[in-house]
Amino acid sequence: MARAPYVSFRVRAPDPGRRTTAQDIVDTVVDDVRSGRLPAGSRLPPVRVLEQQLGLSKNTVQSAYDELVARGLLEGREREGIFVAYASIDTDVSVPRVAEPPAFRARPAPPLHAGSFPHGVMSLSAVFVDPELLPRERLSECARAVLHARGLETFYDVHGYGPLREIIAERLRARGMRDVRAANVLLTTGSQQALDVLGRTLAEPRVAIESPVYPGAKLLFESHGHVVTGLRLDPFAGIPLDEWEARLSAARPALLYAVTSYQNPTGYSYTSHELERVLELAERLGFAVAEDDWGSDMLSGSEYRPMLRLLGGAHVLYVNSFTKKLLPSLRVGFLVAHESLIPALLAAKRLSTLGNAWFSEAIVAEFLARAYYDTHLQSLQRELDARYQSCLGILREQMPEGVRWTLPGGGPTLWLEVPRRVNLARLRADLAERRIEIEAAESAFTGEPHLHGFRVSYAFVPPDRLSRALATVGDLLREALS
Amino acid sequence: MARAPYVSFRVRAPDPGRRTTAQDIVDTVVDDVRSGRLPAGSRLPPVRVLEQQLGLSKNTVQSAYDELVARGLLEGREREGIFVAYASIDTDVSVPRVAEPPAFRARPAPPLHAGSFPHGVMSLSAVFVDPELLPRERLSECARAVLHARGLETFYDVHGYGPLREIIAERLRARGMRDVRAANVLLTTGSQQALDVLGRTLAEPRVAIESPVYPGAKLLFESHGHVVTGLRLDPFAGIPLDEWEARLSAARPALLYAVTSYQNPTGYSYTSHELERVLELAERLGFAVAEDDWGSDMLSGSEYRPMLRLLGGAHVLYVNSFTKKLLPSLRVGFLVAHESLIPALLAAKRLSTLGNAWFSEAIVAEFLARAYYDTHLQSLQRELDARYQSCLGILREQMPEGVRWTLPGGGPTLWLEVPRRVNLARLRADLAERRIEIEAAESAFTGEPHLHGFRVSYAFVPPDRLSRALATVGDLLREALS
Repeated sequence: MARAPYVSFRVRAPDPGRRTTAQDIVDTVVDDVRSGRLPAGSRLPPVRVLEQQLGLSKNTVQSAYDELVARGLLEGREREGIFVAYASIDTDVSVPRVAEPPAFRARPAPPLHAGSFPHGVMSLSAVFVDPELLPRERLSECARAVLHARGLETFYDVHGYGPLREIIAERLRARGMRDVRAANVLLTTGSQQALDVLGRTLAEPRVAIESPVYPGAKLLFESHGHVVTGLRLDPFAGIPLDEWEARLSAARPALLYAVTSYQNPTGYSYTSHELERVLELAERLGFAVAEDDWGSDMLSGSEYRPMLRLLGGAHVLYVNSFTKKLLPSLRVGFLVAHESLIPALLAAKRLSTLGNAWFSEAIVAEFLARAYYDTHLQSLQRELDARYQSCLGILREQMPEGVRWTLPGGGPTLWLEVPRRVNLARLRADLAERRIEIEAAESAFTGEPHLHGFRVSYAFVPPDRLSRALATVGDLLREALS
Repeated sequence: MARAPYVSFRVRAPDPGRRTTAQDIVDTVVDDVRSGRLPAGSRLPPVRVLEQQLGLSKNTVQSAYDELVARGLLEGREREGIFVAYASIDTDVSVPRVAEPPAFRARPAPPLHAGSFPHGVMSLSAVFVDPELLPRERLSECARAVLHARGLETFYDVHGYGPLREIIAERLRARGMRDVRAANVLLTTGSQQALDVLGRTLAEPRVAIESPVYPGAKLLFESHGHVVTGLRLDPFAGIPLDEWEARLSAARPALLYAVTSYQNPTGYSYTSHELERVLELAERLGFAVAEDDWGSDMLSGSEYRPMLRLLGGAHVLYVNSFTKKLLPSLRVGFLVAHESLIPALLAAKRLSTLGNAWFSEAIVAEFLARAYYDTHLQSLQRELDARYQSCLGILREQMPEGVRWTLPGGGPTLWLEVPRRVNLARLRADLAERRIEIEAAESAFTGEPHLHGFRVSYAFVPPDRLSRALATVGDLLREALS
C-alpha cells in the first residue's frame, strides 16, 4: 500500500549562506504547527527527502524530528512516517473543494470539422487526398533514414528545422520567387498555425477574406477579435472586382487573406487579370496580402501558374503546407514573409507553441532532399487529373438539370451548386442516413450564403465509390426537384 | 530555359451541365482580350492543360486556338506557346509592385528566449536539462519500433493520439487523480500550447499570475489582451497570502495560473498550507485555477508531493509536458480539464494548429508503454539531486556574503539573489564577455522586480563547468561589492 502523501514545507534560516541546522528545522515546525500552516495529521517529509532538499549532512533532520517528537508536536507511526500529532493541535484546515460547475468559464466553441473520419461513412466533402495516393511508405523510409543517420535531434528551432527551410526556399526560388531565403521561411504546424501567427501579429485588427472561404480561417480571425470583411466570390461568374474595390475601400482592412489558386471551398482560380487588380488595390488602399497557395501543387502544370507572390513580390505573404500532399499527420506547413516581418512573426509563433516537433520537419526535409516530392506530385497530379475527368463524367451522367459545378481543372475537390429550392439540410440528413456525409457550408460564408451547394471530393473518395455516392445524390436531388 | 508562365482564365459557358465547346473558348478569349482581362503578351494555357481543366476531348482547344490565331487575336511562338498578339490590343495592364515598406503592420514583438543555445556560450540560466541526461537513444529505439510495427499514421487526432492520452490518464490516476480519463486529456505542443489554448478559451479576460513567473506565460496572456494581475512571490519568505487575497479580491481574475511545484524561475514549492489557501480563495472568489506541474517529475520523492489538482479535484486545470524531461524537440505536452470544458478547449486548439504532429506523440506513447519513463525519471532525479548538492557546495564556497539562493531540493535550477547594489546589467555584460550567459529576469515580473538575481541551472551545466562559471560569477560579485 502506498503511504500517505507528505506535505511540503519550507525551512526558514536566518542566513541562507550557511547550512541549515537542526534548530532551524525545529523552529520552523513549531511556528508552522502553531500558525496552522502544518495541520494536525499532516505527514512530514521523510528524513532522507528533507536532508536532500536542504543539502544537509546525515542525521541533522533526524535529530530535529527526535526533538519535536519529544516535545509532543510530532509523532512517528510505524512504517507510515512522521506526522503532526493531533494531541497538540487545535487548528484544523480542511481541504476545500472547488465548486461545481467548473469555475473556468469558456467562450462558446466555434464549429470546425474534426479532421478525422468515422469508419463506414463516406465523407464526400473532405478536402483530404485519398490515403492510397499518399507516400506513406516512402515517408517511413525517410524517417528510418533520419534515425539511422543522426538519431533524434535534442533541441527544436523556433524558426523551424534549418535544412527544411533551405530546401523550401530553394524550391520557391525555382518557381520564380527569387528573393526567398531560408530566413524568410517560418515553419508552422500545417497552414493553420501560419494563419494563426498572422492573426496574432497583425497590428490593426481588420481582415478581408473571400466568401465563401475556408471556415478555419474565418473563425480564427474572428477568434482574435478581428473585424472580418467578406468579399463575395462566385466561382461561376468570377470575382466582382468593382464590388471588391468598394468593400475594401469602405472597410480598409489591414490584411487580405486570399486563396488564389484552387480556392477552398469553390475550387476557383483567380485569372491573371484578377490577380493584378488585387495587387493594384493592395497598393492603392494600403493593405497587405497573404496568399494561401495550398492547392497549386495538386494541379498539373501548376509550376507555370502565376501566383500573387510571384506577381506582387516580397511583400505578399505566402502560406503553403505539406499536410494534404504528403501526410496529414506530419502537420508541416510554412509562411514566407519579408525579412522585416520575421521577428514579429517569430515572436507570435513562440507564444503559440515555442517551436514545433522536429522529427516531422526532418522527415519532410529528407523527402524533399531525395527529390521524392516532385516524383510524388507528378503521380499525384496524374491520378487527380484522372479522377477529376471521371468525376466530371459522373456528374454529367447523374445530375439533374439545373445542377452546376465548377471546373477547377484537377486538384482535390469541386463545388456542386444545386437549385435554391433544394433544402440542403434535408439533403444532408437524407445522405447521412445512407452513410454519406456532405459538409454544411454555411460557416464558410460571411453573410447570407450566395451559393447553395457543397464540396465534392474526387480526391478523397475513390472513383467507384464516388460514382455510387453521386448517383445517390442525383436521385435525391431529382426527388427534391420533382 | 523555362517557358513563360501562362495566365489562368476561366471559360464561360451558358450551361455548365454540358461540355464546353470550342466556340465557348473563342467567345471567352475574344471578350477577355477586348476587356483587358487578357493583356497583350500574355501566354495562354497550353492545349493539353486547358483540355484537361475543362474535361474536353482532344483537339477542341486546338481548334479554338487555331480560330483565334486566324482572327489575329492570338499568335503562336515556336517552342514558347500561344500568346495574346500585341498587334490587336490597345490596352495594357502592367503588374503593380507592392510598396516598400511592407504593407503588413506587425505588433511589436515581445522578448522571449529563443530556446536554442549558441555554441561556445554557457547558458547558466537555461531551464533545460543537460542533453547528456536525456534518453535520446531509447527514444530513437521507440521511434524505430513504431515505424516497424505500424509505420506512419495517415491522419492526426485533434484531441491527440489516443493511446498516449490513455497512458497519461492512467499515470495521473496512479498519482491520485482518480477521475482522469483519456477524454479529459488534450495533447499540446509542449505546455506553451496548453497555456495558449487556455488563454484563447477564457471567457473573461482577467488572469492572475505569480510574479516572478515564466515570461512566456505572462507575455502570452497579455498578447491575448487579458488583464494580467501579478501576485508577488518571495521564494525566501513564502507567499504573502493576505496580500494575495487582497489583490485577488480587487482584480477578480477568471483564472489563476500557478506553478505550485518548483516554481519557474524561483524553484519555490508551495507549502501544503499555501495550496489550501489558494483553493479556498478560488472557491470563495470564484476563479479557476490552472496548475502547471512541469517540475515535480524532476524532484525525487515527488510522487508523494500533493498537487493543487490532487487537493482541488476535477476543477483544477492541470498542465504538464515531456519537453524538459524527455527531449525538447518532441514538443509533447498536455492539458487536463473537466469534461465540460473539453469541447471549448478542443475548438481553441483546432483554431491554433488543428492537430499536432502524430509521430512525436506516438514516440512518447511507446516510451511510456515500455515503462522506460519511470526508470528514466529515477536516474534523472538521482543525477539532478547530486548536481543540486554539488551546486549548493559550490555556492557556499564561491559566493560572497550577502548573496542568497533558494533551496528547491533538486530539480533543474535555483534562484540566486544578489545584493541590490550589484548592477545586474553590468554583471550580465561582464559575464557575456567571458561567454557566460545569464538571463535578464525583468520580463518575469509584473511590476518593479522585488527580487534581484537570476536562475542558476545545475541541470543544464555539468558540475565542472558550473564550478568554473560560478567561480567567475563569485569573482565579479566580489568586485562589484567591494
